[in-house]
Amino acid sequence: MMAAMPRIIAIYLVRCDAASIDSRAAAIAVEQSVEMPISAIDDSRVLADIVGRVESIDDCGGSVFEVRIALATATTGLEPGQLMNMLFGNTSIHDDVALEDVVFPSEVLAAFGGPHHGFEGLRRRSGAEGRAMTCSALKPQGMPPEALADLAMRFARGGVDFIKDDHGLADQAYSPFPERVRAIARAVAEANAETGGRTRYVPSLSGHLDQLRRQVSVAREEGVDTVLIAPMVVGLPTFHALVCEFPDMANIAHPALAGVQRIASPLLLGKLFRLFGADATIFPNHGGRFGYSTETCQRLAKAARAPWGGLKATVPVPAGGMTLDRVTEMLDFYGQDAMLLIGGGLLAARERLTEETAAFARRVARYPDG
Amino acid sequence: MMAAMPRIIAIYLVRCDAASIDSRAAAIAVEQSVEMPISAIDDSRVLADIVGRVESIDDCGGSVFEVRIALATATTGLEPGQLMNMLFGNTSIHDDVALEDVVFPSEVLAAFGGPHHGFEGLRRRSGAEGRAMTCSALKPQGMPPEALADLAMRFARGGVDFIKDDHGLADQAYSPFPERVRAIARAVAEANAETGGRTRYVPSLSGHLDQLRRQVSVAREEGVDTVLIAPMVVGLPTFHALVCEFPDMANIAHPALAGVQRIASPLLLGKLFRLFGADATIFPNHGGRFGYSTETCQRLAKAARAPWGGLKATVPVPAGGMTLDRVTEMLDFYGQDAMLLIGGGLLAARERLTEETAAFARRVARYPDG
Repeated sequence: MMAAMPRIIAIYLVRCDAASIDSRAAAIAVEQSVEMPISAIDDSRVLADIVGRVESIDDCGGSVFEVRIALATATTGLEPGQLMNMLFGNTSIHDDVALEDVVFPSEVLAAFGGPHHGFEGLRRRSGAEGRAMTCSALKPQGMPPEALADLAMRFARGGVDFIKDDHGLADQAYSPFPERVRAIARAVAEANAETGGRTRYVPSLSGHLDQLRRQVSVAREEGVDTVLIAPMVVGLPTFHALVCEFPDMANIAHPALAGVQRIASPLLLGKLFRLFGADATIFPNHGGRFGYSTETCQRLAKAARAPWGGLKATVPVPAGGMTLDRVTEMLDFYGQDAMLLIGGGLLAARERLTEETAAFARRVARYPDG
Repeated sequence: MMAAMPRIIAIYLVRCDAASIDSRAAAIAVEQSVEMPISAIDDSRVLADIVGRVESIDDCGGSVFEVRIALATATTGLEPGQLMNMLFGNTSIHDDVALEDVVFPSEVLAAFGGPHHGFEGLRRRSGAEGRAMTCSALKPQGMPPEALADLAMRFARGGVDFIKDDHGLADQAYSPFPERVRAIARAVAEANAETGGRTRYVPSLSGHLDQLRRQVSVAREEGVDTVLIAPMVVGLPTFHALVCEFPDMANIAHPALAGVQRIASPLLLGKLFRLFGADATIFPNHGGRFGYSTETCQRLAKAARAPWGGLKATVPVPAGGMTLDRVTEMLDFYGQDAMLLIGGGLLAARERLTEETAAFARRVARYPDG
C-alpha cells in the first residue's frame, strides 16, 4: 500500500554537545515524521516506511553536527507546503537547528518540475545572446501610476532588459494594480517601438491565489510575459500553483521574508525556489546592503544553475545596493549566466537616468571589455 | 490623494553599536518603505506620506536597541502578505534585526477583523462552560483512514472536546484527505451518539487556495465545523482568504514553520495570527519538547486574549510534549480561558487510551479540585 519511492535526505546543522547528539538526531527524525513516541506505534508499516531514519551524524567542530535524516517521500504528498512541513515544520521551532540542504529523489524533481523557462527562456525573451541580462527597479512606492510609467519609459529608452516593480508595489489605493500595470506596460511598449528594443516590464504580484490570477490576467492583456513574486510572502503552495497554472508566464522570485528563515539561503533561494518553478531568483549580493558572504552567494548561484535532474536552470540575480562600478567585478564573479539588478543606483542619476541605464546596458554587453 | 490613515508602529530589536544606531534605524525606515536613496526622491507627498519615520530609539543594554518606526498604513494595501512585506520583508534578511512587536491603528484591525468565533465561539461549540477546553491529536501519519478513525473513536469515547489531525496528516497516497476525513468524522459522530458528547473532529488542511476549498467542502459535508491550518505553511494571504470565505468554519492555527521566523512568537503566533483570524493558536508550552520560556508563553497568551479593539479573543493552546500530570500546573498558569492539548502523552496509554483521555477530561473539568 505504501509507495516505495526513495527517501528524501534532509541535512540539518545541530548545535549540541557530543554526548547528546545521538538522541537529538533521533528526536528530529521522529519530530519530522510521526511526532509521537515510537514505543506507542504498533503498525509495522509505519515503523518501516514512515518513521524518519538517521542516516549519519558528522562532527563539524565547535559543537555543531551535520545530521542526515532520511524522510519518507510519501509523507510530503508531493505538495510544496507539506514538503516544507515535513522538512522543517516543527523542528523550525528549535533555534539550535538549521536546515542546511536537501537531497531529493528524482520522483520529487519530476513531480514539481522546476522552472518552465529558466535561464534559456529568459535569455531568449530578452535577446541577451552571449551576455548577461540586465534589470532595474521601479520605485519609490507611493508614486501614482503615471509617474512610475514615466520612469519606466526612461529606463526602457536606456535599453535595460527587464524593469521590475519594486517589491513594495502591490495593490494600493494610491496606485491600484490594474491602473499601474496598464500605464507602465504601455509606456514600455512605446519606448520599445521607438528604440526597436525588447525591454520587458515585470510587475510585482501579491495576495492570495484568486487575487494573483486576476493580476496575471491584467498583466497578460498588456502583453506582459514575466512577473515578480515573493514566494515566502504569498506562500510556497500558492507560488507553485501559479507557476503550474500559467506555464507561459515567466517569473522572477523575490527574497522578501525569506531571509528570516533558519534555512540556508542557497537551499531556500537557490534549490527550493528552483524546484517550485522560479525562472530567476533575486538575492542580496555580497558587499551590498545585506550581510551575505561571497561563499553564500557562490553556493546560491550554484544551487540555482547546476545541472539537476533535467530541471532548467534558474537565473541568479544578485542585487541589494549594487552600482555601475561593480558590473565588471560581478560578471567576473557570476559569469554571463546571470542577471544584474541595479535599482537605486540608477535612480540616483535622476535626470540622467536614461544615460546611466544605457551605460549599464553597454557595460554588460561589452564585458569583458570595459 | 493619499489616504490619511494613522501609521503602523513597527518595533524592532536591533543589535548594533551605539555609534551606528541612528543610521541603522534610518536605514530600516527606508528599507521598509521606499527602499531607495531619499535624496533621489522628488515627490513631496512620497517624502511626507510614504517614507518610514523613526519614532524612537531606546537602549536596552547589551548593544541591543528598541527602534520604533512609523510605517504608512496605505503601503500595506490592507492585504496580509503585503503587510508582512512592509513590516519585515527585506529587513528579515538582516540577521541582527528582529521584529518584536507591532502597534496597529484601528483601521487595520477593522480591515482584517480577527477571529470569527474566538474563545467564546469555540467554548460554545464544545459546551465547555466554566472550564478550559481539551484537545488531543491523531497520529502517527502513515496509518490508513480506518486505523485513524478507530483511534478517533476511542478518543471521543473518553470525552475530549477536540480531536485534531496531526499537522503531518495532509493529502497523501496512503491516506487521501477525503477518505480520511469521512472515516474519522463518522467514527466521532458515532461515538458522540453513544455517549451524548459533542467531541469535534478537527481535520488538518493543506495546499493552495483551491485545494483548501475542496478540503473544506469535504469536511463540511461530514458536519465538521472546526479545521486545523498552519498559516506559515499555506501562507498568510491564503490563511486569511480562507477565514473570510468560510466565516462559519472555526480554525485552530498550528505553528509549523513559524518558529523559524526571527519574529517574536508572541507577535506572530499571538497577535498576527489573531489579526488574520485564528480562533485558537497552538504553541509549544514551556518545559516541553521546545525551548519557549515561561515569559514567552505568558506574553503569547496575553497577545492572544487581551482586549484588542473589539477583536474576539484567540484561544491559547499550549502543547508540545504535554502530559496528564501537568494539567493542574498548566491551568494555574494559563487559567481556564485556554485549551490544553495532549497528543503523544495520551497515545502512550495504548489500550487504555479511552480511560486516559477520560482522566484528562475529568481533571480539566474538576479543576481546581484534583
